[in-house]
Amino acid sequence: MATPKTDKTLWSGPSANGRGIKADLRRRRPWYVSDWTDGWNAKTTASIFYMFFTSIAPAITFAELLDSETEGKIGVVEVCLSSCISGAIFSIFAGQPLCIVGVTGPVMILTITIYQLADALDINFLYFYSWAQIFAGVMHMLVAFLGWCDGIKYITNFSCHTFGLLIATIYAWTGIQSIIKYYTRSGPFDVALMQTIIALGCTLVASWLAKSRRWTIGNERVRVFVADYAPTMSIVVWTVISKVGRAENLGNGLPHVNVPRNFGTTSGRPWILAFYSLEAWAIVLALVPALIILVLFVFDHNVSSIMAQSKEFRLKKGSAYHLDFFVLGICIVVTGILGIPPCNGLIPQAPLHTKSLGVLRTERVNGRNVDVVEKTWEQRYTNLGQAVLTGVVLIRPLIVVLGWIPKSALDGLFLFMALESLPGNELWERVCLVVSEPSLRRSDSPWYSLDFPIITRFTRLQFSLAVVIFAVTQLPFVGMTFPLFIAALVLVRTKYLPKKYDARTLELIDPLIDLAQMDKTPSSADLLEASSHNPI
Amino acid sequence: MATPKTDKTLWSGPSANGRGIKADLRRRRPWYVSDWTDGWNAKTTASIFYMFFTSIAPAITFAELLDSETEGKIGVVEVCLSSCISGAIFSIFAGQPLCIVGVTGPVMILTITIYQLADALDINFLYFYSWAQIFAGVMHMLVAFLGWCDGIKYITNFSCHTFGLLIATIYAWTGIQSIIKYYTRSGPFDVALMQTIIALGCTLVASWLAKSRRWTIGNERVRVFVADYAPTMSIVVWTVISKVGRAENLGNGLPHVNVPRNFGTTSGRPWILAFYSLEAWAIVLALVPALIILVLFVFDHNVSSIMAQSKEFRLKKGSAYHLDFFVLGICIVVTGILGIPPCNGLIPQAPLHTKSLGVLRTERVNGRNVDVVEKTWEQRYTNLGQAVLTGVVLIRPLIVVLGWIPKSALDGLFLFMALESLPGNELWERVCLVVSEPSLRRSDSPWYSLDFPIITRFTRLQFSLAVVIFAVTQLPFVGMTFPLFIAALVLVRTKYLPKKYDARTLELIDPLIDLAQMDKTPSSADLLEASSHNPI
Repeated sequence: MATPKTDKTLWSGPSANGRGIKADLRRRRPWYVSDWTDGWNAKTTASIFYMFFTSIAPAITFAELLDSETEGKIGVVEVCLSSCISGAIFSIFAGQPLCIVGVTGPVMILTITIYQLADALDINFLYFYSWAQIFAGVMHMLVAFLGWCDGIKYITNFSCHTFGLLIATIYAWTGIQSIIKYYTRSGPFDVALMQTIIALGCTLVASWLAKSRRWTIGNERVRVFVADYAPTMSIVVWTVISKVGRAENLGNGLPHVNVPRNFGTTSGRPWILAFYSLEAWAIVLALVPALIILVLFVFDHNVSSIMAQSKEFRLKKGSAYHLDFFVLGICIVVTGILGIPPCNGLIPQAPLHTKSLGVLRTERVNGRNVDVVEKTWEQRYTNLGQAVLTGVVLIRPLIVVLGWIPKSALDGLFLFMALESLPGNELWERVCLVVSEPSLRRSDSPWYSLDFPIITRFTRLQFSLAVVIFAVTQLPFVGMTFPLFIAALVLVRTKYLPKKYDARTLELIDPLIDLAQMDKTPSSADLLEASSHNPI
Repeated sequence: MATPKTDKTLWSGPSANGRGIKADLRRRRPWYVSDWTDGWNAKTTASIFYMFFTSIAPAITFAELLDSETEGKIGVVEVCLSSCISGAIFSIFAGQPLCIVGVTGPVMILTITIYQLADALDINFLYFYSWAQIFAGVMHMLVAFLGWCDGIKYITNFSCHTFGLLIATIYAWTGIQSIIKYYTRSGPFDVALMQTIIALGCTLVASWLAKSRRWTIGNERVRVFVADYAPTMSIVVWTVISKVGRAENLGNGLPHVNVPRNFGTTSGRPWILAFYSLEAWAIVLALVPALIILVLFVFDHNVSSIMAQSKEFRLKKGSAYHLDFFVLGICIVVTGILGIPPCNGLIPQAPLHTKSLGVLRTERVNGRNVDVVEKTWEQRYTNLGQAVLTGVVLIRPLIVVLGWIPKSALDGLFLFMALESLPGNELWERVCLVVSEPSLRRSDSPWYSLDFPIITRFTRLQFSLAVVIFAVTQLPFVGMTFPLFIAALVLVRTKYLPKKYDARTLELIDPLIDLAQMDKTPSSADLLEASSHNPI
C-alpha cells in the first residue's frame, strides 16, 4: 500500500517488508536510555496511581461480568494479570511507551461470544481462546511487518463514533439486564432490592461526582481530582454502605466480586494451558475469532495510540506505530498461552496518561488564561509502574479487599460508563439535534452549516447502521463478528458515501484524517475532550 | 399607620377603621357580575385541572405527615376538605378571586407543634386547635378592619428568602428523617428497602421531569406540561411500581396513604367539635398559637396575593387586600369550628393560577420573540372549580385511589420540594457564591456590584439567622413560635441593618418594596420565576 508523504516524526513512510518496524526502531533507539532515566519526580509518581485507579474500576467491572458469563473461566485475577503482563511487556519493549494497554469492553463482549460458541460446539473454551489469541498475535506481527497500520488513515469519526455509540448501548443494555436478573433469578426479595439500590446508587453517585469539573466550590485541583476518581469513589462508597448496618444482615445473600483466597486462577486451573490438545478442526476454526481480534485491534489500538500522541502534548521522541503493533502481537501470544484476555490500547486512559505527564505553562490567549503544555515527561516508568500495581492487587491482603465490592455496584458502573460516553459522540449529538424542536437547535460543529435535511439524512443512515450492528451483537455466535461490521463502516465511508454526498458535505460532516496534520483536525482533540470523563 | 401615596388600583390609601375594606368593596363591586360571566372557555377549564393537580400532590404530602404526627387527628380528608371549603368561600366572597388558598408547609409544621403542646399539657388537641383558629380568624378580621395589611411594604427579600430557605431546610430534614425511620422502626427489611427505593425514586423522577422546560425535544407545550405536572407524574409512576410485580408480595407491609373507607373524618370523630367544653385556662392559652397564625398569614398570605397580582399580568379589576384578609378570617373561623387546618394563599400556585389565565401575544423585543400578556381572564369560576374538585376526590371511588399512593413516595416529594425551592432563593445563591472559587464567581444580581467582603458579611449574618430559626423549629413547644422570628427579621431589616450598612448597599442587596412600583422591581418577578417550579 502506497502511503502519502507525511510528517516523518509521526509517520514512517513506505513501510512494507518490515521497513516500518525498522524505521520505528531507528527513531526510538537513541531515546531508550533516557526513557528510563527521564522524569523520576512527584508528577510521574502521581501519574502511576492515577492510571492505576482509572483503569482498575472498569477492569474489575468487565472481569466480574466475564466471570458470570463464562462460569468462572475468566475472572478478576485473569483480567488484572493480563493488564499487568501486557502492560509490563508493552512499557519495556514498545516504541511509544505512553500508550496504556488493558482489557477493553469490546474484548469482554468478544470473549463472551467466543465462550458461547465453544460451549455450543462442545469444545474446550480456554484452549479455543488460546488458539484464537496465538493466531491473532501472529497476524498482528504480520500486519506490522507489512506496514498495514498505515490503513488507519481511512478511519474517520463516521466509524469511530458509530463504534462509540454501539459500545455505550451495549454497556447500558448490560447494566439493565443485570438489574432485571436480580428479580428474575430466585432469591430473597430484600437482596434484590438492596442490589437495585446499590447498582442505581453507584451510577448516580459516580455521575454526580464526574460532573465536579463544572462545580465552583473549592479549587480546581480538588474538583478535577474528584471527577477523575468518580467511579472509584462511588465503588468505595457503596462497598462501605453494603458493609454497614442492617445491610450486613443480608449476610452472604448479597453477591460480591468473586476472588480466589490466594493468588491463583479463578477456576483453580493451572496457569499454563494444554491448548495443543485441542481438536484440529477446532484449531482451524479459531482462525475466525483470531481475524476478528485483529480487525478490532487494528481499529481500537491505533486510535488509542494516536490519541495518546496528540500534537497538543508536544512529544519529542517520535512515534512507532509498526513496532508497537508488533509488540502488541507478542503480548497477545503470551496472554493466549495463559488463556487470559488480550490487551490493547485503552481509551480514555491512554490519552489521559500523556496528559497527566505534561508540564503546563499558563499563556494569555485572546485575553483568557490558557494552560499549554511546555513539555511532557516521555518515559517508560509510569506505564510499567501502573502495570505492576495492577498485579500487586492480586496478592493477599489486597485481593481480599477486592472481594468486598458488591457485584451490583459494578452493574451500576456499566450504566455510568454508558451515560458518560454519550456527550461528545458526534452521532449522538446529531441524533439529539434531529429530535430537537427546530427553534432550539444549536451546535458549534462545522457540519451545522449544512442544510438541515442533509444532516438528518446522514444521521438517519449512520444511526440505522448502529442499530443493525447492535442487533448483530445480540445474535448468538454471529455476535462476535461485530468488529468486522465496524471495519465495514470504513468501506461505507470511503466507497458508498462519496457517491451520495458531494465532497464539501463530506468534508464538513466527516473529514478524512490527514495523517501529517492529524493533530490539528478537531477530531482527535474532540475525541480526547469527549472521552476524558469516560473510563472505559 | 400613615401610608405613602400609592397607585389607587393596587393600594387603597389610608385604611384604618374599616375604610380599607370599604374601599375594596367599592372597587370590586362593579365587577362582581362579570366575575361570574367572563371567561367561560377552554383556557379557564384547563386552568381548573391544572390548579387542582399542582395543589393536590403537596396537600396530600402535608396531610400524610400530619396524619402520622398527630396520630390520625388530622389526615388527608381534613386537609382536602379545608382546601375545598376555604377555596369555595374565598372564591365567592373575596375581592381578588385569583389568589388560590390551601394548606401550606408552615401550617403543617405549626399544627404539629400545637399537637405536641396540647399532648404535653394533656389538653384536647382538637378543641385547642379550634380555639386557636377561632381567635386567629377574629384577629384577621380586626387586622383587616384596622388596615394593618399595609405593613407588608416592610417585607423584603431579606425576610422572604430567609423564610424560603428555612422551609426548604425543614422539608429536606422531614424527608431525611422519614427515610431514617424506615430502618429504625421495627419491620421487615425488604419493606424498608422498597420504601427507600420509592422515596428516592420519587424525588429523582420528579426532579428530572421538572427540568423538562430546558429540554429541546418535542415542543414547548409538551415540555411545560411535563414540568408543571412533574410531582404528580412521579407519584403516579411510583404508585404503579409499588402495585406491580413482586413489590406487591410485600402485601400490607408497604405503608400507603391513610384514607377512611367512606367520606368522614380520618379518626371517625363527628365533624362539629364540642370545642366550648375546653378548660378556660386552655382557651386563654390558645391566644398564643392564634397570634402566631396571624403573624404567619399576614406574611405568607399577602406575599402570595401580591405575586398573584403582579403587574406583568395586566389585571384590570383592581385589588382588595383588606377585604381578602377579612374573608380569610371568616374561612379560618369555619375551619376552626370543624377542627381542620387553616388555609392561606399558596406559593407558587397563586401566581401560577393567574399566569395560566393569561391570553398571550408574541412581540418582537430586541430581535427576540417574547410572549406578553394581552389580557387575563379575571373571574371566580376557576378558583371555585379547583376547590370543588379537591372536595370531589374525598368521595368514593376516588378516595380509594388516593389510598393506593405509598407513603414513601410522599416522603420523596418533601426532598423534591426542598431541592426545587433552592434556585432563585437569593440567600442560597449568595451562600453558593461565598463558597465558590473566586475566579468562578458569577452573578447577574444587582448586589454583585458591591465589594465582595460586604456580600460575605451580609450573607453570613442572614444565614446565621436562618440557622438559629431552624434550631428554634426543632425545639419542643417553642418550635411553634418560628413565624414570630420570621416577623422579627422585618425588624432586623428596618432597624438594625441600616445602622451597619450604608443606604446604597442596602438598596442593592435588599431593596425595599415601593408598593406603587412594586411589580416593576425585580423582587416580585424574580420570586415568581424562582418559585414557578416549586409546588409548595
